[in-house]
Amino acid sequence: MNFNLQETIEVLERTPQSIEYFLSGLSDGWLLVNEGEGTWNVTEVIDHLIEGEKNNWIPRVEMILKEGENNTFPTFDRFSHLKENSGGTIEEKLLEFKNMRKHNISKLKSLLETESDLELTGIHPAFGVVKLRELLSTWVVHDLTHIAQIVRVMAKRYREDVGPWIEYLGILTK
Amino acid sequence: MNFNLQETIEVLERTPQSIEYFLSGLSDGWLLVNEGEGTWNVTEVIDHLIEGEKNNWIPRVEMILKEGENNTFPTFDRFSHLKENSGGTIEEKLLEFKNMRKHNISKLKSLLETESDLELTGIHPAFGVVKLRELLSTWVVHDLTHIAQIVRVMAKRYREDVGPWIEYLGILTK
Repeated sequence: MNFNLQETIEVLERTPQSIEYFLSGLSDGWLLVNEGEGTWNVTEVIDHLIEGEKNNWIPRVEMILKEGENNTFPTFDRFSHLKENSGGTIEEKLLEFKNMRKHNISKLKSLLETESDLELTGIHPAFGVVKLRELLSTWVVHDLTHIAQIVRVMAKRYREDVGPWIEYLGILTK
Repeated sequence: MNFNLQETIEVLERTPQSIEYFLSGLSDGWLLVNEGEGTWNVTEVIDHLIEGEKNNWIPRVEMILKEGENNTFPTFDRFSHLKENSGGTIEEKLLEFKNMRKHNISKLKSLLETESDLELTGIHPAFGVVKLRELLSTWVVHDLTHIAQIVRVMAKRYREDVGPWIEYLGILTK
């Protein structure tokens, strides 16, 4: 096991500002490109990250702490951000993500009382019994997954433009 | 073709600070983990990015502009950063990368005189004739590739820790 609460928070607290720095002020060419029908552009990825801050991570932490295995997590709709009218500029979205994450990290710190809380369990609708530390590990890996998605989507925009170098650039052929 | 010089520079100028924000102050657990024997940790990825700023991108731009197809690019050793004693903290390396990139973007802007320069050609040791705009496109995709690598290496550290969620996290199984 590599999980460590402090190291988990280190990543969670860096993600929003790092993404904000990378995406703020970028041309629409980068922000609106996707990988084809049914895939997300960079802006939609940020909408999804915001949705997770609102409805996924902290509500599930709270369910584990308050209800344990007495209740099943509500299903998290991974596509809900696509259904709503999610207006606003990329800068507004990035700011919302940053503020919500900051708030959620404070909340997390206030909710966890002892190291042994990390072993508490809840019921996931598909997986059954899961531990709090597994949920927190997943939160981190979920951030990293979507950073990887952002850069992959952007990279593919230049798929044809790199010419023969495509041979060295595995990101373009996955 | 999606290549656009201004949009290319937008990404190149954001990469170092975005990575700096993400990695500065992280625990060694994140900075020193790799994907197994013969793979790079996050710190080694930064060494490689610095090496590219020194010996790859701008020297090749200059070769295209000055020598065209009269000379072949020197081979870029993608592993040279592993052979040298690359001391220094991650913060020092990130600062070096940021400063070199800033200098190289200024240099690029000063070297390019007209839009038509982007069509100029040079000789790549493996690929033969390549265009300046293909080289610049590759520079961007190379940045994005290594950001993807950084987050993948970090994510895999929690491969076991996410428990059953591994099923939803493709980054862990690639």
